[in-house]
Amino acid sequence: MKRTINVVSLDQTPIEEQQIELVERKCIGHPDSIADGVAEAVSRALCREYEDRCDGVLHHNTDQGEVVAGASIPSFGGGKIVRPIYLLLTGRATKQFEGHVIPTDAISIEAARIYLAETLPTLNMERDIIVDCRMGDGSTDLRDVFKPSGSSPIPRANDTSFGVGHAPFSEVEEIILAMNQEIADTLRPKHPMIGYDIKIMGLRNGDQMTFTIASAMVDRYCSSMDDYVNMTALMQEELQAVARKHTSRKVEVAVNTADDIKNNSIFLTVNGTSAEMGDDGSVGRGNRINGLITPNRPMSMEAASGKNPINHIGKIYNLLATGIAQEACMKVDGITEMYVRLLSQIGKPIDQPLVASVQIIPEKGSDFTALSRDVEEIVNERLADITSITKRVIKGELKTF
Amino acid sequence: MKRTINVVSLDQTPIEEQQIELVERKCIGHPDSIADGVAEAVSRALCREYEDRCDGVLHHNTDQGEVVAGASIPSFGGGKIVRPIYLLLTGRATKQFEGHVIPTDAISIEAARIYLAETLPTLNMERDIIVDCRMGDGSTDLRDVFKPSGSSPIPRANDTSFGVGHAPFSEVEEIILAMNQEIADTLRPKHPMIGYDIKIMGLRNGDQMTFTIASAMVDRYCSSMDDYVNMTALMQEELQAVARKHTSRKVEVAVNTADDIKNNSIFLTVNGTSAEMGDDGSVGRGNRINGLITPNRPMSMEAASGKNPINHIGKIYNLLATGIAQEACMKVDGITEMYVRLLSQIGKPIDQPLVASVQIIPEKGSDFTALSRDVEEIVNERLADITSITKRVIKGELKTF
Amino acid sequence: MKRTINVVSLDQTPIEEQQIELVERKCIGHPDSIADGVAEAVSRALCREYEDRCDGVLHHNTDQGEVVAGASIPSFGGGKIVRPIYLLLTGRATKQFEGHVIPTDAISIEAARIYLAETLPTLNMERDIIVDCRMGDGSTDLRDVFKPSGSSPIPRANDTSFGVGHAPFSEVEEIILAMNQEIADTLRPKHPMIGYDIKIMGLRNGDQMTFTIASAMVDRYCSSMDDYVNMTALMQEELQAVARKHTSRKVEVAVNTADDIKNNSIFLTVNGTSAEMGDDGSVGRGNRINGLITPNRPMSMEAASGKNPINHIGKIYNLLATGIAQEACMKVDGITEMYVRLLSQIGKPIDQPLVASVQIIPEKGSDFTALSRDVEEIVNERLADITSITKRVIKGELKTF
Amino acid sequence: MKRTINVVSLDQTPIEEQQIELVERKCIGHPDSIADGVAEAVSRALCREYEDRCDGVLHHNTDQGEVVAGASIPSFGGGKIVRPIYLLLTGRATKQFEGHVIPTDAISIEAARIYLAETLPTLNMERDIIVDCRMGDGSTDLRDVFKPSGSSPIPRANDTSFGVGHAPFSEVEEIILAMNQEIADTLRPKHPMIGYDIKIMGLRNGDQMTFTIASAMVDRYCSSMDDYVNMTALMQEELQAVARKHTSRKVEVAVNTADDIKNNSIFLTVNGTSAEMGDDGSVGRGNRINGLITPNRPMSMEAASGKNPINHIGKIYNLLATGIAQEACMKVDGITEMYVRLLSQIGKPIDQPLVASVQIIPEKGSDFTALSRDVEEIVNERLADITSITKRVIKGELKTF
Repeated sequence: MKRTINVVSLDQTPIEEQQIELVERKCIGHPDSIADGVAEAVSRALCREYEDRCDGVLHHNTDQGEVVAGASIPSFGGGKIVRPIYLLLTGRATKQFEGHVIPTDAISIEAARIYLAETLPTLNMERDIIVDCRMGDGSTDLRDVFKPSGSSPIPRANDTSFGVGHAPFSEVEEIILAMNQEIADTLRPKHPMIGYDIKIMGLRNGDQMTFTIASAMVDRYCSSMDDYVNMTALMQEELQAVARKHTSRKVEVAVNTADDIKNNSIFLTVNGTSAEMGDDGSVGRGNRINGLITPNRPMSMEAASGKNPINHIGKIYNLLATGIAQEACMKVDGITEMYVRLLSQIGKPIDQPLVASVQIIPEKGSDFTALSRDVEEIVNERLADITSITKRVIKGELKTF
Repeated sequence: MKRTINVVSLDQTPIEEQQIELVERKCIGHPDSIADGVAEAVSRALCREYEDRCDGVLHHNTDQGEVVAGASIPSFGGGKIVRPIYLLLTGRATKQFEGHVIPTDAISIEAARIYLAETLPTLNMERDIIVDCRMGDGSTDLRDVFKPSGSSPIPRANDTSFGVGHAPFSEVEEIILAMNQEIADTLRPKHPMIGYDIKIMGLRNGDQMTFTIASAMVDRYCSSMDDYVNMTALMQEELQAVARKHTSRKVEVAVNTADDIKNNSIFLTVNGTSAEMGDDGSVGRGNRINGLITPNRPMSMEAASGKNPINHIGKIYNLLATGIAQEACMKVDGITEMYVRLLSQIGKPIDQPLVASVQIIPEKGSDFTALSRDVEEIVNERLADITSITKRVIKGELKTF
Repeated sequence: MKRTINVVSLDQTPIEEQQIELVERKCIGHPDSIADGVAEAVSRALCREYEDRCDGVLHHNTDQGEVVAGASIPSFGGGKIVRPIYLLLTGRATKQFEGHVIPTDAISIEAARIYLAETLPTLNMERDIIVDCRMGDGSTDLRDVFKPSGSSPIPRANDTSFGVGHAPFSEVEEIILAMNQEIADTLRPKHPMIGYDIKIMGLRNGDQMTFTIASAMVDRYCSSMDDYVNMTALMQEELQAVARKHTSRKVEVAVNTADDIKNNSIFLTVNGTSAEMGDDGSVGRGNRINGLITPNRPMSMEAASGKNPINHIGKIYNLLATGIAQEACMKVDGITEMYVRLLSQIGKPIDQPLVASVQIIPEKGSDFTALSRDVEEIVNERLADITSITKRVIKGELKTF
Repeated sequence: MKRTINVVSLDQTPIEEQQIELVERKCIGHPDSIADGVAEAVSRALCREYEDRCDGVLHHNTDQGEVVAGASIPSFGGGKIVRPIYLLLTGRATKQFEGHVIPTDAISIEAARIYLAETLPTLNMERDIIVDCRMGDGSTDLRDVFKPSGSSPIPRANDTSFGVGHAPFSEVEEIILAMNQEIADTLRPKHPMIGYDIKIMGLRNGDQMTFTIASAMVDRYCSSMDDYVNMTALMQEELQAVARKHTSRKVEVAVNTADDIKNNSIFLTVNGTSAEMGDDGSVGRGNRINGLITPNRPMSMEAASGKNPINHIGKIYNLLATGIAQEACMKVDGITEMYVRLLSQIGKPIDQPLVASVQIIPEKGSDFTALSRDVEEIVNERLADITSITKRVIKGELKTF
């Protein structure tokens, strides 16, 4: 069956030429990211269990849950957690299949705790966090829809919904992702004082970029206010250097500007996340699947993390749309900017969207006909191969936040 | 102090001329909307208490919380709730002020239960829902930031963040809001079978509009499958008529298309919401503050509901940006489409955004200079009057979802 | 089948002649009594539902649950609840029977809330209490044991366990029960200031009786410290008069002796129970089924409240043993004091205890042979009629705490 | 100040001469014992923290909490936990002291988890159990009462209450304690199949003793039904041998008599406790402080576990009364049986009970005057040294269940 693929030229000011651009990332230890990460870890664990015990992955959506902040008293050299973080796992998962019982609650709790221990190694898992579970069993209807559609091996869409993606990244977007990576791969391993709850906000006003970074610091690795101030200075310097590698525009980097050093009002924490002392988190309220929040770009409101990776459009089409845009921009010449939207129809095979809509801002002088033929081919191939998204999500190769 | 207001002409295909447009609304009884509505009701109740007991509204953000679905067995003529919905209130609120104790937990529980009883009158409040509370006390820092900034009566921004709004509504947007109103004001009062959890999705593909409506039905008012089918037919007809009043394009309306009548797989519920049988809900995952989800428009990811209405940019600037756009489109001639973005700077008075950025697609032949002067004036006036947003939110005059 | 009934003469100092006797009662609003009352109300509601929907009462034990105290700020004229009481319902109940689903969670929540509203009419049910539920489904084994034993209509014992009862009441016991009744029937209706959480402790040292009463007062009905002091004085006087009707010994009654009037440290409450401000409660930690705690008498540790009234020995045998003792003392002359112990054997019909052991302190000069023949007959009759216990429990005619 | 010590001769049939005696013990992994053990572990941890950080132990009572059973599917060779056990910690503890914050929630969670890991080494702590906490802060009044009483170093009684103890153990009591020890020290280390949730019930009818043991088995160490049956046989044999060492009466030992081997209805568990599949547990519903439930003896209803060991009469006086009885029976000749009751008066120093009442059944021919003088001396000494109880409890040297 031929797919409805719709490639059009977009008459719009490219992002880099717009006056103002705002981009944000909540790093791995932000309460919303913790919620996302746990939701996704739980879904992956359930997928593996379903694959081991049943014919395939069964219906589940664990894209819910709430990180309820605790209370802490940070202190130079090491403070204490007063009230643990409370993490409530909710969502649904199929608990019975052909006489087998799937221990979804036990699996979910374990997956959440393992994820937390790995992601926030500062957390004392016996003391600093409570992981609770009120996961349901899903409605019968949804479980019906989920069964493989007989002859076809392609799952059917769970909903009439859509996914959206864009490429290439703008400079601001690129820089924020690069800063995130620098912190995770280089700075934090060297300087354990740098916490996990880091928010990077990038604002471009014409050719002036400002990156405002709010970084939790881990008190046990921070002996004094001087230590603290030195670390923010070091981060400022290192991240400024990262930014400069990606742009020739003016760059300003500010770290923990909300601090009031005189009054000892700083972003010091026991474990490196504000979830320990006042900030709650929810699944789907943070980064989109490309790791960013980009109000100047079309965005999906869907919480991708924790959604089942078999037929949930809000997860699969967002991942696929982004994948298509990135591949096309890499392989096809002449694209300045590209937006991909995939629309599903509930109950139809997911490789057959109602429409795959591609908007391209072509480079001046490019051959749009040729270009759009190449892009259409990529869209076609990627849709034909859509189930590979599922496999890569389960393996943890595709990030959702 | 002069405000930085930036009005530019936007070179972009207006929404009505774009090939594809997708819009969605989750009505009042959708689990995400329940979460939003409760969060906002709790915030309003706290505001009133703070105003009564303290100098003014104190720091709080109740933009969290989770609706954990129950289990039900709907049945023609009236089924039963098997496991109640579990609603967890979280977030933070200031619990002490100058020696006074503010009973934030008790207030929140009460506000949530009153809101639920009013909004979902089918719910048996003694049996069908559990309202639990794990609300915290907020971090000291945030409470510090919240204090009035001395000389100025204007609160300071809680964060470096932004709000966004657009006007006018497109036909699809208008129709969805009109359908929502028709259901709430006319159809449901006449036909109590129509439930509260209704999702309206509008897709325009060129000049063809398709509205897909998923409407829960209340079983006690539905005696048979015929009854049910008749009601979906009636809704289809009435809502089609609503749509026709707002457009001359081709319109198709489909109600409960996922039903499988033969297999008795229909959207029948005990209380009119899928929260009773499988669908969880979270604050901030549904409608934006204009009541819609509009992936073809710039959107903010912020959960406005439950945020404090004093200095929380994610709430106030989204409401204000939308208000500005709507007022400007109404009062100023020559605007085809308009986008307003307000950017804050943490710690600065909220009437002084870092930048107020307005993008306008002018009508052909309009005088952009004159037009932008008028718009700038409106922006200026509305910013000067920004605290009226707070008052109107507390009174419940401004919707947040 | 002949029953093993063992009536012996007990060579022991009767309670009234012992030097020291201690008796206690936790009245209806004590946190432990709240827990008991809710557990029993839930069990009764389940019994009625099971009877309506199934062949008979199905397996359940709701003899668990926890009253977690809230926080309040009482104040003359009316204070406020700061943090609601949290009531967790646990235990097990059969959720499915021959294809029917029994909505045990919804029933339990409703039964608990109705009981609380009736028992503690001061409670604002929308604000002052959270009723949560984590009730399970029971193990398969237990449900098997519960099935009627084929030919016999007599249920089989759930456990190897026992019940114990005594009669007649001592003077101290009688007085405490009379005081309780006076408060509930006369004093509180007239003086709503008198709360629900009242602990009556009676100590007899030789011929000197001391009754120490700790009574919560309801602040909205208490305008001042004078009011408060007057009410304790009134209670003291009225309860002293009650005591005098039942004894010719020296009686001292003290009300709220732990008060420190000077320092405003008094037993003032918002709703009349210490559960609102610091005291937790559990099922089975308060009164025995005769309404008393009697350390000078044999007692069972079983929590009778919430146990299923069909085959749970810990409930049925305690009620029956007490009933037998009371009937025998009323009908048979010559008994000074009597103790009844019923021992079950797991899996055997409950009308066939392993042994029914009766110890009697006979009056001087009584004909023990005749007397014991009469008693044995009563034991026999009551055992033959054991299932009436079940019916009376379900109707609420038999108290369990 | 002279103490009121009252030693009287008790005219009563000694327990060993009574026709019927019933004794029970719930071993370490019974749900009620788990609740008791956790409550006590939490109290000990708080005591240590208070001692480290403050002048001394502050007010707390953690004698609450609920073990809500999970669900499991045991299977020869190793089954699985489907729904984790849910453990709710409640009670109160002082959270602030002279400006210090005591992280009572974090301490309690940690203490509970450590205790569980040590006591039930089969439990997968990441998967099989949820430890939640809703601990309160205690009422102001109680915290006032708790302060050291100025001049005297002796704490004041928290309540008008009492403690009770007896000695020596009867044969049945002795045997049950010996069986418990044999299992814990010898059998289980050798045979890990033997679980932790074991209930031992001893019934003596004249000279016939019957011990009924219900022992959970751990499925991962049990490869087949034969394995299972062999282990019950082995336990039967070994425990019979234990009993024979302590009595010359007829002894019958039955292990897991409720099993229905044919229908595979046996006491097989994943982790060795019925808390994993259907049985809830509460603090204070199991063993008394001597490790036994003895309905033929005077018993206190108090939940000793988790009570503060400073001034809580329900804990201290029960421990002391039992200690006194045991010491007296060991050191003083001529005592057949002895009961000690200690009565407190709220607000009075705990070394000055209102009355210390000792009842002794003397051996025939013994010199009661001399004997009672010796006993009185022991009572006096032990009361003078009462604070050593506190120290030994904190060190974990005194068991409470």
